[in-house]
Amino acid sequence: MLQSRYFVPTLKEAPADAEVISHKLLIRAGMIRRLTSGVYSYLPLALRALSKISNITREEMNRAGAIELLMPTVQPADLWQESGRWDYYGKELLRIKDRHDRDSCLGPTHEEVITDIVRKELRSYRNFPINLYQIQTKFRDEIRPRFGLMRGREFIMKDAYSFDRDDAGADASYKTMYEAYRRIFIRLGLKFRPVEADTGSIGGNFSHEFMVLAATGEDTIAACTACDYAANVERARVRYDGTRDTTPPPPYTAVATPGACTIEEVAAFLKIAPEAIIKTILLDVDGEPVAALVRGDREVNELKVKTFLGANQVFLASPEQVTAWSGAPVGFAGPVGLKGVRILADAELQAREGWVAGANAADTHFINVSLSRDAAISAYADIRAICEGDVCAVCGGAMEFPRGIEVGHVFKLGTKYSKAMHATYLDENGKEQFVIMGCYGLGVSRVLAACIEQNHDEHGIIFPPAIAPFHLALLNLDPKDPDISAKALEIHDLLEQQGLEVLLDDRDERAGVKFKDADLVGLPMQLIMGGKSLARGVIEAKDRRTGEKTDLPVDTFLQAFSAWKDRVYKGWE
Amino acid sequence: MLQSRYFVPTLKEAPADAEVISHKLLIRAGMIRRLTSGVYSYLPLALRALSKISNITREEMNRAGAIELLMPTVQPADLWQESGRWDYYGKELLRIKDRHDRDSCLGPTHEEVITDIVRKELRSYRNFPINLYQIQTKFRDEIRPRFGLMRGREFIMKDAYSFDRDDAGADASYKTMYEAYRRIFIRLGLKFRPVEADTGSIGGNFSHEFMVLAATGEDTIAACTACDYAANVERARVRYDGTRDTTPPPPYTAVATPGACTIEEVAAFLKIAPEAIIKTILLDVDGEPVAALVRGDREVNELKVKTFLGANQVFLASPEQVTAWSGAPVGFAGPVGLKGVRILADAELQAREGWVAGANAADTHFINVSLSRDAAISAYADIRAICEGDVCAVCGGAMEFPRGIEVGHVFKLGTKYSKAMHATYLDENGKEQFVIMGCYGLGVSRVLAACIEQNHDEHGIIFPPAIAPFHLALLNLDPKDPDISAKALEIHDLLEQQGLEVLLDDRDERAGVKFKDADLVGLPMQLIMGGKSLARGVIEAKDRRTGEKTDLPVDTFLQAFSAWKDRVYKGWE
Repeated sequence: MLQSRYFVPTLKEAPADAEVISHKLLIRAGMIRRLTSGVYSYLPLALRALSKISNITREEMNRAGAIELLMPTVQPADLWQESGRWDYYGKELLRIKDRHDRDSCLGPTHEEVITDIVRKELRSYRNFPINLYQIQTKFRDEIRPRFGLMRGREFIMKDAYSFDRDDAGADASYKTMYEAYRRIFIRLGLKFRPVEADTGSIGGNFSHEFMVLAATGEDTIAACTACDYAANVERARVRYDGTRDTTPPPPYTAVATPGACTIEEVAAFLKIAPEAIIKTILLDVDGEPVAALVRGDREVNELKVKTFLGANQVFLASPEQVTAWSGAPVGFAGPVGLKGVRILADAELQAREGWVAGANAADTHFINVSLSRDAAISAYADIRAICEGDVCAVCGGAMEFPRGIEVGHVFKLGTKYSKAMHATYLDENGKEQFVIMGCYGLGVSRVLAACIEQNHDEHGIIFPPAIAPFHLALLNLDPKDPDISAKALEIHDLLEQQGLEVLLDDRDERAGVKFKDADLVGLPMQLIMGGKSLARGVIEAKDRRTGEKTDLPVDTFLQAFSAWKDRVYKGWE
Repeated sequence: MLQSRYFVPTLKEAPADAEVISHKLLIRAGMIRRLTSGVYSYLPLALRALSKISNITREEMNRAGAIELLMPTVQPADLWQESGRWDYYGKELLRIKDRHDRDSCLGPTHEEVITDIVRKELRSYRNFPINLYQIQTKFRDEIRPRFGLMRGREFIMKDAYSFDRDDAGADASYKTMYEAYRRIFIRLGLKFRPVEADTGSIGGNFSHEFMVLAATGEDTIAACTACDYAANVERARVRYDGTRDTTPPPPYTAVATPGACTIEEVAAFLKIAPEAIIKTILLDVDGEPVAALVRGDREVNELKVKTFLGANQVFLASPEQVTAWSGAPVGFAGPVGLKGVRILADAELQAREGWVAGANAADTHFINVSLSRDAAISAYADIRAICEGDVCAVCGGAMEFPRGIEVGHVFKLGTKYSKAMHATYLDENGKEQFVIMGCYGLGVSRVLAACIEQNHDEHGIIFPPAIAPFHLALLNLDPKDPDISAKALEIHDLLEQQGLEVLLDDRDERAGVKFKDADLVGLPMQLIMGGKSLARGVIEAKDRRTGEKTDLPVDTFLQAFSAWKDRVYKGWE
C-alpha cells in the first residue's frame, strides 16, 4: 500500500478530552475519530487491526466448534420484557420508538435474541450441545463514555452463547471456551491473565474475566507468580495455613480505652501490635445484623461475606444500627457478649488466642479474649481482603498485584434465561428440560485499545505482529529521486509477493516526519531506504519494539530480511 | 463441515407472510429468521453467503483504489441538520434520544459522516482524489417492510464516497466505480444490467442503477439486445429517426366529434388510426400550464418533461385547469389556437403533417393540422414513454423489457453535500474550492435475495458458485454404516484439502430428506454416496443447476471430480 494514496491522518497533538494513552495514540496515529460522545469512526488502519483481531477470534471459535451467525442490531422490546431485563437493565439500554410507535432497543448484548432462536429451532436433545456466536457492533448508552475505545458507547464485540442439556455439558462448553480464549489472546501476542470473577448470587455458576495486563488498567488482579491462579482482587481467595494456638489465655478482663475507636488508636493506647486486636465490623445483611471479624491489620471483604451467606445485599451498619446492635457507640463492638448478632470470623483468627476486642461498651475493650471460649462464632470463613504478603490460596506461591483491562468474560449462566423465556428441549424420554446456557464475550474494539495500553512508548504505539495493521513500514526517504522510488516500489512488491503487508511511505515529506509517523503508528518492523543507505548497499531495518537497528544488504535482501524478521518476531514470544 | 454439528434449520413450509420466492426460500433453507418487522437474523448459511458477497465486493473496491473504513451506526443529529436532511428525510430516518436527551439517528446512509471526516482531515488539493468505503449494517424505518431481505429495515450495505478536485476528476471516479461494479456482479455470477437512472434535477450529475435480472423484479428495464444501452423504463431514451414529411396539408378545418373524448373514441368516430391523432396532455409544471403533445398511440413521460424543463414538480392538470387553459372540457384540448400555454411536442411528431387534434372547443376536433404551420410549438423533444417496438436510442437495435432488482446505485453527487457542509480544499493557488462528490451503494444483503430470485426452481435455491455458502453438499445416505461414514469423512477431508468447502450431510435422516434439503439449500454441486453407489465403485455427482447426474469412479475420484467440477462451473459462465 502506498501511503500517499492511503488515509492515515496523523496528528502532532492529542485532543484535550483524551485521558488515557490508547485514546491519545489512536487519535494521533490517525486510527480513530470521534463522531459523538463515545462513538468513533474506525479509520483504515484501525479497521485493519480490528479485522486481524476478529479473524483470529473467528478461527479459534470455529476450531472450538462454535458456529457463526449474525443477529440484528435493533431488537424488539417484547423479548426483553420476557426475560425481565426491559425493566431492570437501566439507562444503558438505548430504547427506541419506531415510526409505528413500537418499543425497540439497540442491542447491548444478545441473550434474549439467541435464546429465542434456539427455543424455536432446536427442540430435541440431539440438537445439543450447540454454541452460536457473532462478531457485531453493539451499543450501550454509558452515562460517562470515556477513554476512547476503552469505554465507548458503540463498540465491536464477539459474543457467543452455548446451550447444553445438563450441567456437566455446560461445564464442558465453558471449559472449551476458556481454552479458546486462552488461545486467542496468546495468538494476539498479548500478556494476559484469566482471573476468577464474580458471578453474582446464582449458585452453581461461575465466570472468568480475561485481563490484558497493563500498568494503566482499571482493575487490580491478585495473581500467583508460581501457578495459574488469579482472581479479581475483589474476590481473590486468601489462604489460611491452618496454624492453631489453642493454649487458653487467662480469663478476659475489661480495660478502659477512653476515646480509642480505631485499631490504630487502641494499638497505640495499649502499646500492642494491630495484629493482636480483633476488628469487628457490623453489617446489615439483607436487613439482619452480622458481625464480621478480621485481624486488626486486615480488611473485611463484603463481597465474600455476601457470597458466603448467599445474601442479596450487604451494607455497612449505620451508627444507629451499631448502637442498637452492640449497645455501644461506633468503635467498641466486639464478639464477646454480642447478642442477637450472627458472628462470622475470618479463618485466620483461629491461629491464636488472647485477643484484644471491643467490649460493646463505650471506651472499653477486653483483653485475653479467646474466641472459642468467650464468643459464639457462627462460622470461620475466608472473609478478608487479600493483601501484600499473602500467599497463593492454591499453591502457596508468592502473589503479585498487577493491573489489567478486562477484554473477555466467560460466564456459566445456568438457566437464568432458559427459565425466564422457557427455552426447553425434549430429552431421550420425551420429557421437557431447560437448556443450560453459557455466554462468552470478547471486546474486539477494546482489545485494540488494551493492546496499545500494554504496548507503547513515548514515541507511539508498538503493535504486536498479529494485530499490526500492516506487517511493516517501508520508508522511502528520497521520494523525489525516481531511481530510489523505483527501488522502493520494487522492495514493496517483493515483500508483498512474500505475503507481507507493506505500508510504503512514499509521501513528499521530510525524513523526520516519516520517522516520527512510523514510530507513532507502530508497525513492528521498519525498513528505511534512501540515497545514503543505498550508496552503502544496504537498507536499514529497525525493530520498533527494541529500537535496535540492523543493516540489510541489498544484494541478499530477501534472505537477510527473512532472518531479521524471525528475530523481531521471536522477541515478541 | 458436518451438518449434524451445524445449524441449518430447514422447513417444509414457508411462513404465511413470505410473499416473494427469495423470502420463502431463505426461510425454508434455514438461512434467515425474522426477529421483528423487517429485521432478520442471518443464520450460518446466510452469513457465509453474505461474507462471500462482501469479500468479492471488498476485493474489487480495493482494486479500484478505494479505501475501507468503518463509520458508526449511531449518528448525531447536528450533522443531519447541517446537510438539511434532518428535516426532509422523513420517517425512514429512525430518530433516537439518548439518556442525555440528545438527538441522534440510526444511519440509513453516511454522506454526512464521511463529509465531516473529509472536511476536517483533508485540506490540500494533494489529498484528492480519494474514495472511502465501508461494509456496514444500516437501518431505514420503511413504512411497510416486506419481501424478506428485499425490502428490510435493517440491512447490510457497501457504501462508498468519492471526493475529487473537479468535475473531470469526479467523472473519472464515477467511471472507475462503474467498472468496479461491473466486475463485482460478473464475479458474483449474476445476470445483470447497468441502467441509466434518474438523478433528480441537479444539473451535471448522473447515475446508474445496477439491476439483477429476474422475472420477479420490481423494476422494468428498457434494454438494448444489441448494445450496452439500458435504462430504467421510466427514463429510457426514445430514438426519433429524423423522418420528416413537410408536404403542407390542406388548411385545417373543424369537424364535430360529439362525445369523443379519448383517442380511441376519436379514431373510431373518424375511422382513422390513433397514429394520425395528436394526444394533447395538459400539465401543471411548477404552477405553469404546459401542453405535452405525443402521437395518439403513445404515452407522455412526465419525468422526461420535468427533466427537459428543469422543473421541480409536474402534475396532470385538474379538469378545472384544463377548462381554464383550453377553454374546453377534458378531451378536446389541442395545439391549434392554444393561448398562454407552453407547448412541447414529442420529436416524432415532426415525421408527418395533416394531424387530427382537439380544437379547444367541446365536441370538436381539427383535421389537416400542420404543427409547423398552425401551432406555436415551443420545442420538439423526447417526451414520450418507450414502448414495445421502439428501437435502441443509441444503436437502433431491438429493445427488450426485462424485469430487474436494483442491487447497486452509482451516483455523481456534485457539490450537494460539500456546499451544505462546507467541505473544501485549498487548490494549487491557495484558493478554497468545494470538493466534488460521488456516492456508490451496493446492497449486500439484497444481492443475496436477488441472487435467489434469479436462480431457483420448484425445489429450492440454485446458488451461483461464487455466492454459495459451501462449494458442495456431500450426502452420506448410510450414516449408520461405520465404513461408509468413514469413507464419507475421507472424501470430505480430501476435498477440503483441495480448498473446497464441503457440507457433509451426516445426519441420521432418510435419504429422501437429505435429497430434498440439498436441493432446497441449493449448493451448486452435490455428491451422493451410500452402500449402493459404493458397491458400484462410484460416487454420484449432481449438478444442482441442470439436474444432470454423473458417476464419479471412486478409484480415480479426485481427477474425475475435478473434471466434473470444471463442467459444472463452465455451465455458470
